[in-house]
Amino acid sequence: MKKDLLTTTELSTGEIARILDMAQSFAEGKEWRPKGLRFVANLFYEPSTRTKSSFEVAERKLGLEVIPFEVQTSSVQKGETLYDTIKTLESIGADAVVIRHSIDNYFEELKGRLKIPVINAGDGCGHHPTQSLLDLLTIRQEFGGFQGLKVAIVGDIAHSRVARSNADALTRLGAEVVFSGPPEWFDQDAHSKGYRFVNIDEAVSSSDVVMLLRIQHERHGGNENVYLDSYHRHFGLTAARERTMKKGSIIMHPAPVNRGVEIDDALVECSRSRIFKQMQNGVFVRMAVLQRALENKEGGNKYVIANQKWPVAY
Amino acid sequence: MKKDLLTTTELSTGEIARILDMAQSFAEGKEWRPKGLRFVANLFYEPSTRTKSSFEVAERKLGLEVIPFEVQTSSVQKGETLYDTIKTLESIGADAVVIRHSIDNYFEELKGRLKIPVINAGDGCGHHPTQSLLDLLTIRQEFGGFQGLKVAIVGDIAHSRVARSNADALTRLGAEVVFSGPPEWFDQDAHSKGYRFVNIDEAVSSSDVVMLLRIQHERHGGNENVYLDSYHRHFGLTAARERTMKKGSIIMHPAPVNRGVEIDDALVECSRSRIFKQMQNGVFVRMAVLQRALENKEGGNKYVIANQKWPVAY
Amino acid sequence: MKKDLLTTTELSTGEIARILDMAQSFAEGKEWRPKGLRFVANLFYEPSTRTKSSFEVAERKLGLEVIPFEVQTSSVQKGETLYDTIKTLESIGADAVVIRHSIDNYFEELKGRLKIPVINAGDGCGHHPTQSLLDLLTIRQEFGGFQGLKVAIVGDIAHSRVARSNADALTRLGAEVVFSGPPEWFDQDAHSKGYRFVNIDEAVSSSDVVMLLRIQHERHGGNENVYLDSYHRHFGLTAARERTMKKGSIIMHPAPVNRGVEIDDALVECSRSRIFKQMQNGVFVRMAVLQRALENKEGGNKYVIANQKWPVAY
Repeated sequence: MKKDLLTTTELSTGEIARILDMAQSFAEGKEWRPKGLRFVANLFYEPSTRTKSSFEVAERKLGLEVIPFEVQTSSVQKGETLYDTIKTLESIGADAVVIRHSIDNYFEELKGRLKIPVINAGDGCGHHPTQSLLDLLTIRQEFGGFQGLKVAIVGDIAHSRVARSNADALTRLGAEVVFSGPPEWFDQDAHSKGYRFVNIDEAVSSSDVVMLLRIQHERHGGNENVYLDSYHRHFGLTAARERTMKKGSIIMHPAPVNRGVEIDDALVECSRSRIFKQMQNGVFVRMAVLQRALENKEGGNKYVIANQKWPVAY
Repeated sequence: MKKDLLTTTELSTGEIARILDMAQSFAEGKEWRPKGLRFVANLFYEPSTRTKSSFEVAERKLGLEVIPFEVQTSSVQKGETLYDTIKTLESIGADAVVIRHSIDNYFEELKGRLKIPVINAGDGCGHHPTQSLLDLLTIRQEFGGFQGLKVAIVGDIAHSRVARSNADALTRLGAEVVFSGPPEWFDQDAHSKGYRFVNIDEAVSSSDVVMLLRIQHERHGGNENVYLDSYHRHFGLTAARERTMKKGSIIMHPAPVNRGVEIDDALVECSRSRIFKQMQNGVFVRMAVLQRALENKEGGNKYVIANQKWPVAY
Repeated sequence: MKKDLLTTTELSTGEIARILDMAQSFAEGKEWRPKGLRFVANLFYEPSTRTKSSFEVAERKLGLEVIPFEVQTSSVQKGETLYDTIKTLESIGADAVVIRHSIDNYFEELKGRLKIPVINAGDGCGHHPTQSLLDLLTIRQEFGGFQGLKVAIVGDIAHSRVARSNADALTRLGAEVVFSGPPEWFDQDAHSKGYRFVNIDEAVSSSDVVMLLRIQHERHGGNENVYLDSYHRHFGLTAARERTMKKGSIIMHPAPVNRGVEIDDALVECSRSRIFKQMQNGVFVRMAVLQRALENKEGGNKYVIANQKWPVAY
């Protein structure tokens, strides 16, 4: 069966645990390489330093060949559809594709039409499953599991790719999730699913994990800039709030951090912060997801059967 | 001798056959790698998904190292000539260069001035020899040869990089070529060479290969958009026309396809279509062309003779 | 100790000699590869063909994995600081970073904050140490050493990344350096350091090395274009001036060359010219600098200690 990774919601808790186990093995030094030359294409239709570079490192650690694909210089400029672009990459030998796209659920148009697995590296305001999985791995490394943990997700819930999928996965895994931040960003969807909204001081002081979300200037069109000064005071993790955190509790943030907005500049690398560890774990999670996508294909993209005429009708 | 690949016209039918044989061997699983570390630079001065990615895959399958070169961030912005750019790449160790450029016959200024072979990946409206060769390979795989075949080339002949060079090569190899499409795009050059122009219905129903050309919006400056609706009806491969095709005949297109313009959306992946197989063959043809360029150089780019002073005059 | 390379000024003459020895060994065919998989990231915030490609070739000759980083598509567009970008790359596994940036001394903000070495590939109008080192290597290959040599540096001294650092290093190594070119570009700083300024005819006819600097159109905002015609006549290396050069003397230029401006078109590849040899040497110097940065690190970026909780305060 083709092992796409499109959303965490579609993964059972057992599947999540298996991916985290694989990622943890890579963190502990496991090596795994597919047989023969395997190709992966990374299609990033939106800017990204860390996700793209993280996939690249993961791919090379697995010995994969990466087919470069720059959206700016590609036939996408000639109006080619996403499907035709990926079908092209499949035809020339890609064994898997990693895609980030600005359109929510872009992958719906691909379902059932490709022979190779699709790994979602972020869709619009929708999902970002490898980010969710690296968040889960970081929490599990810290606390050994999820049962009974309290996790506060703070910030721009409405525009976040990971807030809802993290909340869903954490809840299924046994943690309690509360939301905080500006009330207008706590959307109806989250409310209707029964998540609690608490004020920032309670969120910070009572949680095992304080998971900050990034203020996404670029998604708001920049007109939220007026908030930034007051955001930190009202909803940010200030030095004063950090001092109220529980013993052993940790700070997380998907980065890039707006220093002095979501979090005090001095806290970014403090002893509670797992921000850079999240990035490290990102590589291991992506190695796991790529192994999962490739390990069941025996000989790679065996698209061409040499010397054989393709079936011609009539 | 340095083995450039600039145009198919300069290749004898024997040389064409040899390249196709090498490509077919790669399609059948042959492996070939040059000795030692070899570097290839891909210089794409025009957007291209499939050609650039196809060369990249071919290069990596041969174990070559690819020197990245992005026109947007290069010294080309500082006004450097094409010759000086390539001479630089030669100096730092490139063993071959693959070039796509918007200027017809850009390679004329390079002839006799470089030590390393040049592989033309498309020049202006001029040539695109690896596309021609992959078209030929696809036809040969299907019919075993070219003698007695009838090939219809349909569409924007005047702006096509491959229409004339394919017609030339196919004719030399023993096939009959006819052109079709809008009469105003059947240029004087093709006419003067004695090619027949037939109407679309005859072209489709009487040929073994229906080779569609892409409407090149970006080369027409977009002012042909008015044609698109009526183009499909008048000159496109509609579902109705496809039903008149001969038994065993095939459909080809260099892609990217304008679905619903040159060809009915539903026919792109029909049993007659070799469109995605052409892409697969592109990798094998490029492997062959790269092997041809590199196999006669014994130790790679041996530019520096260590410890030896360069000759100083006087 | 972490082996950054930020400027040549901070290198002792012994350290310079050691790097040149290492580079010369690579020129003579030495091979060196670190143990295990090692990652380098190249961050080029300014256009560059030759420096970036040269580093890429050097990295691949050492068997390093290169993490692609395109400024245009990165989170730099989201306002991320240079420090946070590099910290990210360090977190995901980079063992070293190569940086070119338009800001003079950009590396000051990084000092003492990173675990991995930084190699400066050019900062603003400040430094370009690998260019300086490749210039030194080229001179040493030619003359066996520096003692007693006379080197004329000609042109846009004020805006040059290498004029002052080359002058400093050459003087320390025992050569005499004179400057020439438009007097208004001979800045106070050079004057105060005691360098002599001589007219172009004397500079060319009396020196062992005539080192031309590039007219940096893009740094002058283009308003120097009026100079170009007369520049060649007044300050360029014309065919007539070349005929006055000493026996055995050589011509150098960091490239890209403005043919017909700094140097007569026909002299670019004449027997005195070491311009393309400089490019070749650039690869060997960069291999040496990378080896120096990586050889003392035992097992690569060992950032993650698996299974170990990070220290949590309180």
